[in-house]
Amino acid sequence: MAEPANLAEAAAEALSALRARRPRVHVITNSVAQPLTANLLLAVGATPSMTVAPEEVPDFTARADALAVNLGTLDAMRRSAIPAALDVATEEGRPWVLDPVFVEASPPRLDFARDLLQREPWVLRGNRDEIAVLAGAQTYQPEIAARVALEALTTVAVTGENDLVTDGSRQASVGNGHPLLAALSGSGCAGSALTAAFLAVTADRFVAAVAGLATIGLAAESAAVAARGPGSFAWRLIDAIHELSPGEIARRARID
Amino acid sequence: MAEPANLAEAAAEALSALRARRPRVHVITNSVAQPLTANLLLAVGATPSMTVAPEEVPDFTARADALAVNLGTLDAMRRSAIPAALDVATEEGRPWVLDPVFVEASPPRLDFARDLLQREPWVLRGNRDEIAVLAGAQTYQPEIAARVALEALTTVAVTGENDLVTDGSRQASVGNGHPLLAALSGSGCAGSALTAAFLAVTADRFVAAVAGLATIGLAAESAAVAARGPGSFAWRLIDAIHELSPGEIARRARID
Amino acid sequence: MAEPANLAEAAAEALSALRARRPRVHVITNSVAQPLTANLLLAVGATPSMTVAPEEVPDFTARADALAVNLGTLDAMRRSAIPAALDVATEEGRPWVLDPVFVEASPPRLDFARDLLQREPWVLRGNRDEIAVLAGAQTYQPEIAARVALEALTTVAVTGENDLVTDGSRQASVGNGHPLLAALSGSGCAGSALTAAFLAVTADRFVAAVAGLATIGLAAESAAVAARGPGSFAWRLIDAIHELSPGEIARRARID
Repeated sequence: MAEPANLAEAAAEALSALRARRPRVHVITNSVAQPLTANLLLAVGATPSMTVAPEEVPDFTARADALAVNLGTLDAMRRSAIPAALDVATEEGRPWVLDPVFVEASPPRLDFARDLLQREPWVLRGNRDEIAVLAGAQTYQPEIAARVALEALTTVAVTGENDLVTDGSRQASVGNGHPLLAALSGSGCAGSALTAAFLAVTADRFVAAVAGLATIGLAAESAAVAARGPGSFAWRLIDAIHELSPGEIARRARID
Repeated sequence: MAEPANLAEAAAEALSALRARRPRVHVITNSVAQPLTANLLLAVGATPSMTVAPEEVPDFTARADALAVNLGTLDAMRRSAIPAALDVATEEGRPWVLDPVFVEASPPRLDFARDLLQREPWVLRGNRDEIAVLAGAQTYQPEIAARVALEALTTVAVTGENDLVTDGSRQASVGNGHPLLAALSGSGCAGSALTAAFLAVTADRFVAAVAGLATIGLAAESAAVAARGPGSFAWRLIDAIHELSPGEIARRARID
Repeated sequence: MAEPANLAEAAAEALSALRARRPRVHVITNSVAQPLTANLLLAVGATPSMTVAPEEVPDFTARADALAVNLGTLDAMRRSAIPAALDVATEEGRPWVLDPVFVEASPPRLDFARDLLQREPWVLRGNRDEIAVLAGAQTYQPEIAARVALEALTTVAVTGENDLVTDGSRQASVGNGHPLLAALSGSGCAGSALTAAFLAVTADRFVAAVAGLATIGLAAESAAVAARGPGSFAWRLIDAIHELSPGEIARRARID
């Protein structure tokens, strides 16, 4: 298990690699979060594509370095596109992230998410309610995340006041972040796409999940300094991700 | 009929209730306005959801406290989703707002809007052209709004230089606002979603319609002070809605 | 062939005409770029509409003064809507712009784009990779743009470090712009919609293409002065387009 100091340094190295390699990330996400997600990916140094047309996702996935799948606004087209993209991702060995947004609100979405979990996402990233419901639990308990990770052979990133990353054996908490993130629509969805960008440049999916959380958390802290509300926070967050240096991750990440 | 002073106070109380209760608002709206609408709802203190998938809208509507239906980008999926959502809203007694965007531009959209009007929206919110066309009139006249309200058993909110709210017996005008609102794409659509948030916490739909108009109008006035154009206005509007206090509504609302 | 000085003045006059006539522009574009595109069109003085529903696009195209077709997120609905819109545009003589986004990434999208090119868009606007692939070339060469223009009876605008406009006989380069444009998702798509707005008010499509490129390029230069990153650049770009005067185009445009 990596020591905290090592994890911050590993996350910093992952950001260096991302900036150098500018990976392509194909993102199947909800229509609400698309603009923010595309702009956060560009700001961190990745190249996004976002079509959800089933005829197009195989080609876009094949040329991408990573895939992000978010279940918001899960319509018939997205239901067709996601398996088509995952077939290519599996065949080509592309890393992918699953973000089961609002899975607690819609039984058909929950069923769909459980099927996707069988395909062993490299990282599963959700909030406490979403992870609990996926595990069939009434309320979230920290041990649920480790259980889901082991059962689904995935790394689980749980967002909340303190974010948690676990693959069942290793565990880390990321303390960076700011309450204004919760007031910005799509910030969680964009965070999952960031994680996919890190998976494209990091062999260790545990490090990629930590790096994704630390990057958006640190940028949120920087953005919040001069923000007056969620409107001024939004554009400052994009600037902060654009400006964030690997050295800042190494120094300012609060990883336990 | 409530006196103007009482209406401003009632609107202020509605904002207090909204902040305290944080209602869930499900919004079926056009893809262009989705990000702004979600962020305005979060800024005022509500929790938005936005799926337009017909399989999902019944569950999302059932768990929401109010529903907003906007006819922008009215595709086949939205045509299916809207009646499915309204069936649940009617059965569960959820308040809902109808925003018949661009109904003057598309005959099939006009037919669809007229069918929806039969379902008696709690508030119908549109601009003068839209309300006139819905009433079968060539040009807008103030008495048209009252007629539509009486015939469709709804409360009509007409946006314009001075906004008008009428349920056929009561009538109020809201003088707050700023021309930059018209330069911000989706601001009207987002305003309708705000009205739905107020319907979730206010028994009187007339008050909810006034509160929705006063809130966005006052926030627009605050945002415009330091804005240099529609770009800087957009994020300042979100900040201003986030900062708006019930006391400011009571003091600054211009309701006649 | 117009001299550079004349082209800058012609572009300046086109902006004056746009501000005076406030043309309606119907835009069929990808869901990611919709909010930025709508706000840029409003900022320059045009009135956007954006439905992609095949049942609605004929009416919206008929009442519009120009049409913009962008192939991002090319799903089944957009594949139906685009020919339906073009049938009306052709019948009614409406000018239209084709933006073949990411045509190099998806063979079915490339086939679709080639079919559209047969319909002789007034302006074809893309980056070097897109124009090269459309021409069946491995890599972009400047002479490819002129060849495509002659073969497809269109005016080609190629974006890049220096933008190029050619109709096969005339040729101009536009040197305005800023690297932050490439960090803003949807800025190219929005630029194509701006070109459509200029086509609505300018008889000469060559001038419209130059005016579209000069407008967004000059606004980008203004926005970049105080921007700290792509987040602060985005809203400053909208303000700058709103503020841009015809006189500034005449003075600051770098057209060779």
